[in-house]
Amino acid sequence: MSQPTGSSDRSICLVGIGLMGASFAMALKASGYAGHMTGVSRSEETRRKALARGIVDAATTDLATGVRDADIVILCTPVRMLVQQIGQLGSLCKDSALITDMGSTKTAIIQAMNVLPARLRAIGSHPMCGKETAGIDVAEATLFQGAPWILTRSARTDDDAFETIRALAERVGARTREIGVERHDTMLSHASHLPFVLSCAMVYTTEQFAQNDGDVWQVMAGGYRDTSRVAASDATMWIDILLTNADAILGTIRDFQFNLDQFAAMLERRDEAGLAAFMARAAAARKAKYP
Amino acid sequence: MSQPTGSSDRSICLVGIGLMGASFAMALKASGYAGHMTGVSRSEETRRKALARGIVDAATTDLATGVRDADIVILCTPVRMLVQQIGQLGSLCKDSALITDMGSTKTAIIQAMNVLPARLRAIGSHPMCGKETAGIDVAEATLFQGAPWILTRSARTDDDAFETIRALAERVGARTREIGVERHDTMLSHASHLPFVLSCAMVYTTEQFAQNDGDVWQVMAGGYRDTSRVAASDATMWIDILLTNADAILGTIRDFQFNLDQFAAMLERRDEAGLAAFMARAAAARKAKYP
Repeated sequence: MSQPTGSSDRSICLVGIGLMGASFAMALKASGYAGHMTGVSRSEETRRKALARGIVDAATTDLATGVRDADIVILCTPVRMLVQQIGQLGSLCKDSALITDMGSTKTAIIQAMNVLPARLRAIGSHPMCGKETAGIDVAEATLFQGAPWILTRSARTDDDAFETIRALAERVGARTREIGVERHDTMLSHASHLPFVLSCAMVYTTEQFAQNDGDVWQVMAGGYRDTSRVAASDATMWIDILLTNADAILGTIRDFQFNLDQFAAMLERRDEAGLAAFMARAAAARKAKYP
Repeated sequence: MSQPTGSSDRSICLVGIGLMGASFAMALKASGYAGHMTGVSRSEETRRKALARGIVDAATTDLATGVRDADIVILCTPVRMLVQQIGQLGSLCKDSALITDMGSTKTAIIQAMNVLPARLRAIGSHPMCGKETAGIDVAEATLFQGAPWILTRSARTDDDAFETIRALAERVGARTREIGVERHDTMLSHASHLPFVLSCAMVYTTEQFAQNDGDVWQVMAGGYRDTSRVAASDATMWIDILLTNADAILGTIRDFQFNLDQFAAMLERRDEAGLAAFMARAAAARKAKYP
Protein backbone atom coordinates (compact mmCIF):
# COMPACT_ATOMS: atom_id res chain seq x y z
CA MET A 1 0.00 0.00 0.00
CA SER A 2 3.02 2.28 -0.35
CA GLN A 3 2.72 5.29 -2.60
CA PRO A 4 5.25 7.11 -4.75
CA THR A 5 6.60 10.39 -3.44
CA GLY A 6 7.03 13.47 -5.60
CA SER A 7 3.66 13.28 -7.37
CA SER A 8 1.17 16.06 -6.74
CA ASP A 9 -1.69 13.68 -7.53
CA ARG A 10 -3.20 12.29 -4.33
CA SER A 11 -3.48 8.59 -3.61
CA ILE A 12 -6.87 7.04 -4.23
CA CYS A 13 -8.59 3.96 -2.86
CA LEU A 14 -11.50 2.62 -4.93
CA VAL A 15 -13.85 0.50 -2.84
CA GLY A 16 -15.59 -1.75 -5.35
CA ILE A 17 -13.75 -2.52 -8.60
CA GLY A 18 -16.77 -3.35 -10.73
CA LEU A 19 -18.01 -1.46 -13.78
CA MET A 20 -17.91 1.99 -12.15
CA GLY A 21 -14.80 1.70 -9.97
CA ALA A 22 -12.64 -0.09 -12.54
CA SER A 23 -13.78 2.25 -15.33
CA PHE A 24 -12.87 5.25 -13.19
CA ALA A 25 -9.41 3.86 -12.40
CA MET A 26 -8.84 3.13 -16.09
CA ALA A 27 -10.05 6.61 -17.09
CA LEU A 28 -7.77 8.30 -14.53
CA LYS A 29 -4.75 6.28 -15.66
CA ALA A 30 -5.55 7.10 -19.29
CA SER A 31 -5.54 10.78 -18.34
CA GLY A 32 -2.02 10.45 -16.93
CA TYR A 33 -3.04 10.58 -13.28
CA ALA A 34 0.09 9.78 -11.25
CA GLY A 35 -1.40 9.22 -7.79
CA HIS A 36 -1.20 5.71 -6.34
CA MET A 37 -4.39 3.71 -6.82
CA THR A 38 -5.60 0.89 -4.60
CA GLY A 39 -8.66 -1.25 -5.26
CA VAL A 40 -10.75 -3.02 -2.64
CA SER A 41 -12.86 -5.93 -3.79
CA ARG A 42 -14.97 -8.45 -1.93
CA SER A 43 -14.07 -11.14 -4.44
CA GLU A 44 -10.58 -12.57 -4.76
CA GLU A 45 -11.18 -13.13 -8.48
CA THR A 46 -11.91 -9.44 -9.10
CA ARG A 47 -8.93 -8.45 -6.96
CA ARG A 48 -6.65 -10.61 -9.14
CA LYS A 49 -8.13 -9.32 -12.40
CA ALA A 50 -7.76 -5.68 -11.35
CA LEU A 51 -4.07 -6.24 -10.58
CA ALA A 52 -3.33 -8.46 -13.58
CA ARG A 53 -4.88 -5.90 -15.96
CA GLY A 54 -3.02 -3.01 -14.37
CA ILE A 55 -6.30 -1.26 -13.53
CA VAL A 56 -4.97 -0.40 -10.04
CA ASP A 57 -1.47 -0.37 -8.52
CA ALA A 58 -2.48 -2.45 -5.50
CA ALA A 59 -5.57 -4.47 -4.59
CA THR A 60 -6.91 -6.10 -1.47
CA THR A 61 -10.05 -7.77 -0.22
CA ASP A 62 -9.72 -6.01 3.15
CA LEU A 63 -11.37 -2.61 3.48
CA ALA A 64 -9.18 -1.47 6.41
CA THR A 65 -5.96 -2.31 4.57
CA GLY A 66 -7.12 -0.64 1.39
CA VAL A 67 -8.24 2.70 2.82
CA ARG A 68 -5.57 3.13 5.55
CA ASP A 69 -3.13 5.35 3.62
CA ALA A 70 -5.48 6.81 1.02
CA ASP A 71 -5.89 10.57 0.54
CA ILE A 72 -9.16 9.96 -1.27
CA VAL A 73 -11.57 7.04 -0.81
CA ILE A 74 -14.18 6.50 -3.53
CA LEU A 75 -17.00 4.12 -2.66
CA CYS A 76 -18.27 2.37 -5.80
CA THR A 77 -20.54 -0.21 -4.18
CA PRO A 78 -24.37 -0.49 -4.17
CA VAL A 79 -25.99 2.29 -2.12
CA ARG A 80 -26.94 0.37 1.03
CA MET A 81 -23.52 -1.28 1.31
CA LEU A 82 -21.93 2.09 0.67
CA VAL A 83 -23.84 3.65 3.58
CA GLN A 84 -22.53 0.90 5.87
CA GLN A 85 -19.01 1.44 4.59
CA ILE A 86 -19.14 5.20 5.26
CA GLY A 87 -19.79 4.35 8.91
CA GLN A 88 -16.79 2.00 8.99
CA LEU A 89 -14.51 4.57 7.37
CA GLY A 90 -14.95 6.85 10.40
CA SER A 91 -12.36 4.80 12.26
CA LEU A 92 -10.37 3.39 9.30
CA CYS A 93 -9.27 6.47 7.34
CA LYS A 94 -6.30 8.72 8.12
CA ASP A 95 -6.86 12.32 9.23
CA SER A 96 -8.19 14.69 6.52
CA ALA A 97 -8.91 11.80 4.18
CA LEU A 98 -11.58 12.72 1.63
CA ILE A 99 -14.46 10.29 1.14
CA THR A 100 -16.79 10.30 -1.83
CA ASP A 101 -19.05 7.79 -3.60
CA MET A 102 -20.74 6.94 -6.90
CA GLY A 103 -24.20 6.17 -5.54
CA SER A 104 -27.39 6.92 -7.50
CA THR A 105 -29.38 8.21 -4.51
CA LYS A 106 -28.07 10.71 -2.01
CA THR A 107 -30.28 11.05 1.09
CA ALA A 108 -28.98 8.03 3.04
CA ILE A 109 -25.40 8.64 1.89
CA ILE A 110 -25.31 12.31 2.92
CA GLN A 111 -26.89 11.42 6.28
CA ALA A 112 -24.07 8.93 6.87
CA MET A 113 -21.44 11.45 5.76
CA ASN A 114 -22.88 14.12 8.08
CA VAL A 115 -22.09 12.04 11.15
CA LEU A 116 -18.50 11.14 10.20
CA PRO A 117 -15.83 12.36 12.66
CA ALA A 118 -14.87 15.99 12.02
CA ARG A 119 -11.28 14.90 11.21
CA LEU A 120 -12.57 13.47 7.90
CA ARG A 121 -14.06 15.16 4.86
CA ALA A 122 -16.80 13.82 2.59
CA ILE A 123 -18.83 14.83 -0.45
CA GLY A 124 -21.55 12.96 -2.32
CA SER A 125 -21.04 12.38 -6.02
CA HIS A 126 -23.05 10.71 -8.75
CA PRO A 127 -21.70 10.03 -12.23
CA MET A 128 -24.71 9.45 -14.49
CA CYS A 129 -23.57 6.64 -16.70
CA GLY A 130 -23.55 2.87 -16.65
CA LYS A 131 -24.35 -0.24 -18.62
CA GLU A 132 -26.87 -3.05 -18.44
CA THR A 133 -24.11 -5.42 -17.40
CA ALA A 134 -22.10 -5.09 -14.22
CA GLY A 135 -18.57 -6.09 -13.23
CA ILE A 136 -14.92 -5.44 -13.96
CA ASP A 137 -15.05 -7.27 -17.31
CA VAL A 138 -17.20 -4.58 -18.94
CA ALA A 139 -15.26 -1.62 -17.52
CA GLU A 140 -13.94 0.93 -20.00
CA ALA A 141 -11.88 4.10 -19.74
CA THR A 142 -14.36 6.15 -21.81
CA LEU A 143 -17.41 5.44 -19.62
CA PHE A 144 -17.55 8.95 -18.10
CA GLN A 145 -16.91 10.93 -21.31
CA GLY A 146 -19.67 13.52 -21.65
CA ALA A 147 -21.75 12.09 -18.80
CA PRO A 148 -23.41 14.37 -16.24
CA TRP A 149 -21.72 14.06 -12.80
CA ILE A 150 -23.58 15.51 -9.85
CA LEU A 151 -21.79 16.77 -6.72
CA THR A 152 -23.77 16.97 -3.46
CA ARG A 153 -22.36 18.67 -0.36
CA SER A 154 -22.52 17.13 3.10
CA ALA A 155 -21.76 18.69 6.49
CA ARG A 156 -18.20 17.40 5.94
CA THR A 157 -17.61 19.15 2.61
CA ASP A 158 -15.02 21.94 2.51
CA ASP A 159 -13.89 23.86 -0.58
CA ASP A 160 -10.85 21.66 -1.16
CA ALA A 161 -13.02 18.53 -1.01
CA PHE A 162 -15.47 19.99 -3.52
CA GLU A 163 -12.78 21.17 -5.93
CA THR A 164 -10.77 17.95 -5.66
CA ILE A 165 -13.68 15.70 -6.64
CA ARG A 166 -14.86 18.14 -9.28
CA ALA A 167 -11.39 18.12 -10.85
CA LEU A 168 -11.26 14.31 -10.86
CA ALA A 169 -14.69 14.08 -12.51
CA GLU A 170 -13.79 16.62 -15.17
CA ARG A 171 -10.46 14.91 -15.73
CA VAL A 172 -12.31 11.79 -16.95
CA GLY A 173 -14.52 13.85 -19.24
CA ALA A 174 -17.68 14.24 -17.13
CA ARG A 175 -19.76 17.44 -16.92
CA THR A 176 -20.08 18.37 -13.24
CA ARG A 177 -23.02 20.13 -11.59
CA GLU A 178 -23.78 20.79 -7.92
CA ILE A 179 -27.20 19.75 -6.69
CA GLY A 180 -28.48 19.62 -3.09
CA VAL A 181 -29.38 16.29 -1.56
CA GLU A 182 -33.18 16.47 -1.48
CA ARG A 183 -33.43 18.02 -4.91
CA HIS A 184 -31.05 15.36 -6.28
CA ASP A 185 -33.23 12.50 -5.16
CA THR A 186 -36.45 14.06 -6.49
CA MET A 187 -34.88 14.96 -9.84
CA LEU A 188 -33.37 11.51 -10.20
CA SER A 189 -36.69 9.85 -9.42
CA HIS A 190 -37.84 11.44 -12.71
CA ALA A 191 -34.67 11.27 -14.77
CA SER A 192 -33.62 7.73 -13.92
CA HIS A 193 -35.73 5.80 -11.41
CA LEU A 194 -39.14 6.21 -13.08
CA PRO A 195 -37.79 5.08 -16.50
CA PHE A 196 -36.42 1.95 -14.82
CA VAL A 197 -39.67 1.18 -12.97
CA LEU A 198 -41.77 1.66 -16.14
CA SER A 199 -39.44 -0.44 -18.25
CA CYS A 200 -39.49 -3.16 -15.64
CA ALA A 201 -43.30 -3.16 -15.25
CA MET A 202 -43.72 -3.09 -19.03
CA VAL A 203 -41.52 -6.15 -19.62
CA TYR A 204 -43.25 -7.89 -16.69
CA THR A 205 -46.61 -7.22 -18.39
CA THR A 206 -45.35 -8.55 -21.73
CA GLU A 207 -43.95 -11.62 -20.04
CA GLN A 208 -47.35 -12.33 -18.44
CA PHE A 209 -49.06 -11.92 -21.82
CA ALA A 210 -46.44 -14.18 -23.40
CA GLN A 211 -47.52 -17.01 -21.10
CA ASN A 212 -50.63 -17.22 -23.32
CA ASP A 213 -49.08 -16.12 -26.61
CA GLY A 214 -45.31 -16.46 -26.73
CA ASP A 215 -45.17 -15.23 -30.32
CA VAL A 216 -45.44 -11.68 -29.00
CA TRP A 217 -41.65 -11.74 -28.58
CA GLN A 218 -41.35 -12.26 -32.37
CA VAL A 219 -43.09 -9.03 -33.36
CA MET A 220 -41.01 -6.51 -31.43
CA ALA A 221 -39.55 -3.52 -33.23
CA GLY A 222 -37.26 -0.67 -32.23
CA GLY A 223 -39.73 0.97 -29.85
CA TYR A 224 -39.92 -2.06 -27.59
CA ARG A 225 -36.19 -2.71 -27.73
CA ASP A 226 -35.37 0.82 -26.55
CA THR A 227 -38.14 1.13 -23.99
CA SER A 228 -37.26 -2.23 -22.42
CA ARG A 229 -33.48 -1.84 -22.31
CA VAL A 230 -33.04 -0.66 -18.72
CA ALA A 231 -35.25 -3.49 -17.42
CA ALA A 232 -32.21 -5.76 -17.87
CA SER A 233 -29.99 -3.63 -15.63
CA ASP A 234 -28.15 -4.94 -12.59
CA ALA A 235 -30.80 -5.85 -9.98
CA THR A 236 -28.40 -5.57 -7.01
CA MET A 237 -27.75 -1.94 -7.82
CA TRP A 238 -31.41 -1.19 -8.46
CA ILE A 239 -32.89 -2.73 -5.33
CA ASP A 240 -30.65 -0.41 -3.31
CA ILE A 241 -31.64 2.62 -5.38
CA LEU A 242 -35.34 1.85 -4.97
CA LEU A 243 -35.16 1.23 -1.23
CA THR A 244 -33.05 4.32 -0.49
CA ASN A 245 -35.30 6.65 -2.52
CA ALA A 246 -38.67 4.96 -2.04
CA ASP A 247 -40.70 8.02 -1.03
CA ALA A 248 -39.57 10.22 -3.92
CA ILE A 249 -40.04 7.37 -6.40
CA LEU A 250 -43.54 6.63 -5.08
CA GLY A 251 -44.47 10.28 -5.55
CA THR A 252 -43.17 10.26 -9.10
CA ILE A 253 -44.98 6.99 -9.88
CA ARG A 254 -48.22 8.63 -8.65
CA ASP A 255 -47.65 11.64 -10.93
CA PHE A 256 -47.07 9.25 -13.81
CA GLN A 257 -50.14 7.15 -13.00
CA PHE A 258 -52.28 10.29 -12.96
CA ASN A 259 -51.10 11.18 -16.46
CA LEU A 260 -51.47 7.64 -17.78
CA ASP A 261 -55.04 7.55 -16.36
CA GLN A 262 -55.78 10.81 -18.18
CA PHE A 263 -54.39 9.41 -21.41
CA ALA A 264 -56.43 6.22 -21.07
CA ALA A 265 -59.60 8.20 -20.31
CA MET A 266 -59.11 10.28 -23.47
CA LEU A 267 -58.52 7.12 -25.48
CA GLU A 268 -61.65 5.55 -24.00
CA ARG A 269 -63.82 8.47 -25.10
CA ARG A 270 -61.98 8.77 -28.45
CA ASP A 271 -60.94 12.35 -27.59
CA GLU A 272 -58.75 12.94 -30.63
CA ALA A 273 -57.94 16.59 -29.83
CA GLY A 274 -57.02 15.76 -26.24
CA LEU A 275 -54.78 12.86 -27.24
CA ALA A 276 -53.12 14.96 -29.94
CA ALA A 277 -52.39 17.77 -27.46
CA PHE A 278 -50.97 15.30 -24.90
CA MET A 279 -48.75 13.64 -27.51
CA ALA A 280 -47.62 16.97 -28.96
CA ARG A 281 -46.50 18.20 -25.53
CA ALA A 282 -44.49 15.02 -24.92
CA ALA A 283 -42.99 14.97 -28.42
CA ALA A 284 -41.98 18.65 -28.22
CA ALA A 285 -40.27 18.11 -24.84
CA ARG A 286 -38.41 15.04 -26.08
CA LYS A 287 -37.30 16.77 -29.28
CA ALA A 288 -36.12 19.84 -27.36
CA LYS A 289 -33.97 17.65 -25.09
CA TYR A 290 -32.56 15.46 -27.90
CA PRO A 291 -32.70 17.63 -31.03
CA MET B 1 -48.58 5.75 -66.31
CA SER B 2 -47.36 3.39 -69.03
CA GLN B 3 -45.40 0.33 -68.01
CA PRO B 4 -42.67 -1.62 -69.77
CA THR B 5 -43.62 -4.93 -71.33
CA GLY B 6 -41.53 -8.08 -71.10
CA SER B 7 -40.86 -7.93 -67.37
CA SER B 8 -42.30 -10.64 -65.14
CA ASP B 9 -42.34 -8.23 -62.18
CA ARG B 10 -45.80 -6.75 -61.73
CA SER B 11 -46.47 -3.02 -61.75
CA ILE B 12 -46.84 -1.39 -58.35
CA CYS B 13 -48.56 1.77 -57.19
CA LEU B 14 -47.43 3.15 -53.83
CA VAL B 15 -50.05 5.38 -52.25
CA GLY B 16 -48.10 7.63 -49.90
CA ILE B 17 -44.43 8.27 -50.70
CA GLY B 18 -43.27 9.12 -47.18
CA LEU B 19 -40.77 7.20 -45.05
CA MET B 20 -42.41 3.79 -45.57
CA GLY B 21 -43.56 4.06 -49.19
CA ALA B 22 -40.41 5.71 -50.50
CA SER B 23 -38.16 3.33 -48.55
CA PHE B 24 -40.02 0.36 -49.99
CA ALA B 25 -39.69 1.67 -53.56
CA MET B 26 -35.98 2.29 -53.00
CA ALA B 27 -35.49 -1.17 -51.49
CA LEU B 28 -37.31 -2.86 -54.38
CA LYS B 29 -35.26 -0.95 -56.98
CA ALA B 30 -32.06 -1.83 -55.11
CA SER B 31 -33.08 -5.51 -55.33
CA GLY B 32 -33.37 -5.24 -59.11
CA TYR B 33 -37.16 -5.24 -59.24
CA ALA B 34 -38.12 -4.48 -62.84
CA GLY B 35 -41.85 -3.79 -62.47
CA HIS B 36 -43.07 -0.27 -63.17
CA MET B 37 -43.52 1.82 -60.01
CA THR B 38 -45.90 4.72 -59.58
CA GLY B 39 -46.12 6.94 -56.51
CA VAL B 40 -49.20 8.82 -55.33
CA SER B 41 -48.65 11.77 -53.04
CA ARG B 42 -50.98 14.38 -51.62
CA SER B 43 -48.23 16.98 -51.80
CA GLU B 44 -46.85 18.31 -55.06
CA GLU B 45 -43.46 18.80 -53.37
CA THR B 46 -43.18 15.12 -52.42
CA ARG B 47 -44.36 14.09 -55.88
CA ARG B 48 -41.55 16.15 -57.46
CA LYS B 49 -38.92 14.82 -55.04
CA ALA B 50 -39.92 11.20 -55.64
CA LEU B 51 -39.55 11.67 -59.39
CA ALA B 52 -36.38 13.79 -59.23
CA ARG B 53 -34.66 11.23 -57.01
CA GLY B 54 -35.71 8.32 -59.21
CA ILE B 55 -37.54 6.67 -56.31
CA VAL B 56 -40.49 5.88 -58.59
CA ASP B 57 -40.91 5.77 -62.37
CA ALA B 58 -44.02 7.95 -62.35
CA ALA B 59 -45.75 10.07 -59.74
CA THR B 60 -49.08 11.82 -59.41
CA THR B 61 -51.17 13.61 -56.81
CA ASP B 62 -54.34 11.92 -58.11
CA LEU B 63 -55.24 8.56 -56.57
CA ALA B 64 -57.42 7.44 -59.50
CA THR B 65 -54.69 8.15 -62.06
CA GLY B 66 -52.05 6.42 -59.95
CA VAL B 67 -53.84 3.15 -59.26
CA ARG B 68 -55.66 2.73 -62.59
CA ASP B 69 -53.16 0.39 -64.32
CA ALA B 70 -51.42 -1.07 -61.24
CA ASP B 71 -51.20 -4.82 -60.66
CA ILE B 72 -50.44 -4.18 -57.00
CA VAL B 73 -51.51 -1.18 -54.91
CA ILE B 74 -49.67 -0.63 -51.61
CA LEU B 75 -51.27 1.86 -49.23
CA CYS B 76 -48.60 3.57 -47.11
CA THR B 77 -50.74 6.24 -45.49
CA PRO B 78 -51.88 6.63 -41.84
CA VAL B 79 -54.40 3.95 -40.85
CA ARG B 80 -57.62 5.97 -40.93
CA MET B 81 -56.82 7.53 -44.30
CA LEU B 82 -55.84 4.10 -45.57
CA VAL B 83 -59.24 2.67 -44.58
CA GLN B 84 -60.96 5.44 -46.57
CA GLN B 85 -58.70 4.75 -49.54
CA ILE B 86 -59.50 1.02 -49.54
CA GLY B 87 -63.15 1.98 -50.02
CA GLN B 88 -62.25 4.24 -52.95
CA LEU B 89 -60.12 1.56 -54.61
CA GLY B 90 -63.21 -0.62 -55.03
CA SER B 91 -64.15 1.40 -58.10
CA LEU B 92 -60.69 2.68 -59.14
CA CYS B 93 -58.58 -0.48 -59.56
CA LYS B 94 -58.52 -2.79 -62.56
CA ASP B 95 -59.85 -6.37 -62.29
CA SER B 96 -57.74 -8.74 -60.17
CA ALA B 97 -55.62 -5.89 -58.82
CA LEU B 98 -54.02 -6.80 -55.50
CA ILE B 99 -54.34 -4.30 -52.66
CA THR B 100 -52.18 -4.31 -49.54
CA ASP B 101 -51.09 -1.79 -46.91
CA MET B 102 -48.42 -0.97 -44.34
CA GLY B 103 -50.73 -0.05 -41.45
CA SER B 104 -49.82 -0.76 -37.81
CA THR B 105 -53.30 -1.92 -36.78
CA LYS B 106 -55.38 -4.39 -38.72
CA THR B 107 -59.01 -4.59 -37.53
CA ALA B 108 -60.39 -1.58 -39.42
CA ILE B 109 -58.25 -2.32 -42.48
CA ILE B 110 -59.32 -5.96 -42.80
CA GLN B 111 -62.98 -4.94 -42.31
CA ALA B 112 -62.62 -2.52 -45.23
CA MET B 113 -60.84 -5.14 -47.35
CA ASN B 114 -63.56 -7.72 -46.62
CA VAL B 115 -66.20 -5.58 -48.34
CA LEU B 116 -64.20 -4.81 -51.49
CA PRO B 117 -65.80 -6.05 -54.75
CA ALA B 118 -64.99 -9.72 -55.40
CA ARG B 119 -63.14 -8.75 -58.61
CA LEU B 120 -60.32 -7.37 -56.41
CA ARG B 121 -57.91 -9.08 -54.04
CA ALA B 122 -56.52 -7.73 -50.79
CA ILE B 123 -54.26 -8.75 -47.91
CA GLY B 124 -53.23 -6.84 -44.82
CA SER B 125 -49.53 -6.37 -44.20
CA HIS B 126 -47.46 -4.72 -41.49
CA PRO B 127 -43.72 -4.15 -41.75
CA MET B 128 -42.44 -3.54 -38.21
CA CYS B 129 -39.91 -0.80 -38.70
CA GLY B 130 -39.83 2.97 -38.81
CA LYS B 131 -38.10 6.06 -37.54
CA GLU B 132 -38.93 8.94 -35.24
CA THR B 133 -39.02 11.25 -38.24
CA ALA B 134 -41.48 10.94 -41.11
CA GLY B 135 -41.34 11.88 -44.78
CA ILE B 136 -39.59 11.09 -48.02
CA ASP B 137 -36.36 12.85 -46.93
CA VAL B 138 -35.52 10.18 -44.34
CA ALA B 139 -36.40 7.21 -46.57
CA GLU B 140 -33.72 4.56 -47.03
CA ALA B 141 -33.45 1.34 -49.00
CA THR B 142 -32.27 -0.69 -45.97
CA LEU B 143 -35.26 0.15 -43.72
CA PHE B 144 -36.85 -3.31 -43.98
CA GLN B 145 -33.66 -5.39 -43.60
CA GLY B 146 -34.24 -7.91 -40.80
CA ALA B 147 -37.55 -6.34 -39.70
CA PRO B 148 -40.55 -8.51 -38.83
CA TRP B 149 -43.29 -8.18 -41.48
CA ILE B 150 -46.72 -9.50 -40.56
CA LEU B 151 -49.21 -10.75 -43.18
CA THR B 152 -52.91 -10.82 -42.25
CA ARG B 153 -55.49 -12.48 -44.50
CA SER B 154 -58.81 -10.85 -45.41
CA ALA B 155 -61.87 -12.36 -47.11
CA ARG B 156 -60.25 -11.17 -50.40
CA THR B 157 -56.94 -13.03 -49.92
CA ASP B 158 -56.17 -15.89 -52.31
CA ASP B 159 -52.93 -17.92 -52.41
CA ASP B 160 -51.41 -15.82 -55.18
CA ALA B 161 -52.10 -12.63 -53.22
CA PHE B 162 -50.48 -14.07 -50.11
CA GLU B 163 -47.41 -15.39 -51.92
CA THR B 164 -46.97 -12.21 -53.97
CA ILE B 165 -46.84 -9.91 -50.96
CA ARG B 166 -44.74 -12.39 -48.99
CA ALA B 167 -42.21 -12.50 -51.84
CA LEU B 168 -42.05 -8.69 -52.03
CA ALA B 169 -41.49 -8.40 -48.27
CA GLU B 170 -38.76 -11.03 -48.27
CA ARG B 171 -37.19 -9.42 -51.34
CA VAL B 172 -36.48 -6.28 -49.27
CA GLY B 173 -35.01 -8.34 -46.41
CA ALA B 174 -37.98 -8.58 -44.03
CA ARG B 175 -38.90 -11.72 -42.05
CA THR B 176 -42.53 -12.56 -42.83
CA ARG B 177 -45.03 -14.20 -40.49
CA GLU B 178 -48.78 -14.74 -40.85
CA ILE B 179 -50.94 -13.56 -37.96
CA GLY B 180 -54.76 -13.30 -37.82
CA VAL B 181 -56.39 -9.91 -37.48
CA GLU B 182 -57.58 -9.97 -33.87
CA ARG B 183 -54.43 -11.61 -32.57
CA HIS B 184 -52.34 -9.06 -34.49
CA ASP B 185 -53.98 -6.10 -32.81
CA THR B 186 -53.71 -7.60 -29.31
CA MET B 187 -50.07 -8.61 -29.77
CA LEU B 188 -49.17 -5.22 -31.18
CA SER B 189 -50.85 -3.45 -28.27
CA HIS B 190 -48.10 -5.09 -26.17
CA ALA B 191 -45.18 -5.06 -28.58
CA SER B 192 -45.57 -1.54 -29.92
CA HIS B 193 -48.55 0.51 -28.69
CA LEU B 194 -47.97 0.17 -24.92
CA PRO B 195 -44.28 1.18 -25.21
CA PHE B 196 -45.37 4.30 -27.09
CA VAL B 197 -48.08 5.21 -24.57
CA LEU B 198 -45.71 4.73 -21.61
CA SER B 199 -42.93 6.70 -23.24
CA CYS B 200 -45.35 9.49 -24.04
CA ALA B 201 -46.86 9.62 -20.51
CA MET B 202 -43.38 9.48 -18.99
CA VAL B 203 -42.07 12.45 -20.97
CA TYR B 204 -45.33 14.31 -20.24
CA THR B 205 -44.73 13.70 -16.52
CA THR B 206 -41.14 14.92 -16.74
CA GLU B 207 -42.24 17.98 -18.67
CA GLN B 208 -44.76 18.83 -15.91
CA PHE B 209 -42.07 18.40 -13.26
CA ALA B 210 -39.69 20.53 -15.33
CA GLN B 211 -42.13 23.45 -15.05
CA ASN B 212 -40.94 23.70 -11.43
CA ASP B 213 -37.38 22.49 -11.89
CA GLY B 214 -36.13 22.72 -15.46
CA ASP B 215 -32.69 21.41 -14.50
CA VAL B 216 -34.15 17.89 -14.56
CA TRP B 217 -33.40 17.85 -18.29
CA GLN B 218 -29.69 18.27 -17.45
CA VAL B 219 -29.36 15.07 -15.42
CA MET B 220 -30.64 12.54 -17.94
CA ALA B 221 -28.58 9.47 -18.72
CA GLY B 222 -28.94 6.55 -21.12
CA GLY B 223 -32.00 5.06 -19.44
CA TYR B 224 -34.12 8.14 -20.02
CA ARG B 225 -32.84 8.65 -23.55
CA ASP B 226 -33.83 5.13 -24.61
CA THR B 227 -37.12 4.97 -22.73
CA SER B 228 -38.25 8.34 -24.11
CA ARG B 229 -37.22 7.84 -27.72
CA VAL B 230 -40.56 6.72 -29.20
CA ALA B 231 -42.36 9.66 -27.56
CA ALA B 232 -40.94 11.82 -30.36
CA SER B 233 -42.50 9.66 -33.11
CA ASP B 234 -44.81 11.00 -35.80
CA ALA B 235 -48.06 12.05 -34.08
CA THR B 236 -50.19 11.77 -37.24
CA MET B 237 -49.34 8.11 -37.56
CA TRP B 238 -49.85 7.43 -33.85
CA ILE B 239 -53.22 9.09 -33.40
CA ASP B 240 -54.56 6.77 -36.11
CA ILE B 241 -52.98 3.71 -34.48
CA LEU B 242 -54.45 4.60 -31.08
CA LEU B 243 -57.94 5.30 -32.38
CA THR B 244 -58.12 2.17 -34.55
CA ASN B 245 -56.93 -0.14 -31.76
CA ALA B 246 -58.32 1.65 -28.72
CA ASP B 247 -60.00 -1.31 -27.01
CA ALA B 248 -56.97 -3.62 -27.19
CA ILE B 249 -54.66 -0.82 -26.04
CA LEU B 250 -56.94 0.07 -23.12
CA GLY B 251 -56.88 -3.56 -22.01
CA THR B 252 -53.11 -3.66 -22.19
CA ILE B 253 -52.80 -0.35 -20.30
CA ARG B 254 -55.00 -1.86 -17.55
CA ASP B 255 -52.75 -4.94 -17.35
CA PHE B 256 -49.75 -2.64 -17.07
CA GLN B 257 -51.38 -0.42 -14.43
CA PHE B 258 -52.15 -3.48 -12.33
CA ASN B 259 -48.49 -4.50 -12.39
CA LEU B 260 -47.24 -0.98 -11.72
CA ASP B 261 -49.64 -0.75 -8.75
CA GLN B 262 -48.25 -4.03 -7.42
CA PHE B 263 -44.71 -2.76 -7.80
CA ALA B 264 -45.55 0.52 -6.03
CA ALA B 265 -47.27 -1.35 -3.19
CA MET B 266 -44.18 -3.51 -2.67
CA LEU B 267 -41.99 -0.42 -2.69
CA GLU B 268 -44.30 1.29 -0.20
CA ARG B 269 -43.97 -1.60 2.26
CA ARG B 270 -40.24 -2.02 1.51
CA ASP B 271 -40.85 -5.60 0.37
CA GLU B 272 -37.33 -6.35 -0.81
CA ALA B 273 -37.95 -9.98 -1.74
CA GLY B 274 -41.07 -9.09 -3.69
CA LEU B 275 -39.36 -6.31 -5.60
CA ALA B 276 -36.37 -8.51 -6.33
CA ALA B 277 -38.58 -11.28 -7.72
CA PHE B 278 -40.53 -8.81 -9.89
CA MET B 279 -37.32 -7.28 -11.26
CA ALA B 280 -35.70 -10.67 -11.82
CA ARG B 281 -38.66 -11.85 -13.90
CA ALA B 282 -38.55 -8.73 -16.06
CA ALA B 283 -34.77 -8.82 -16.46
CA ALA B 284 -34.78 -12.51 -17.40
CA ALA B 285 -37.47 -11.94 -20.04
CA ARG B 286 -35.63 -8.96 -21.51
CA LYS B 287 -32.30 -10.80 -21.59
CA ALA B 288 -33.88 -13.86 -23.23
CA LYS B 289 -35.32 -11.68 -26.00
CA TYR B 290 -32.16 -9.60 -26.54
CA PRO B 291 -29.26 -11.84 -25.40
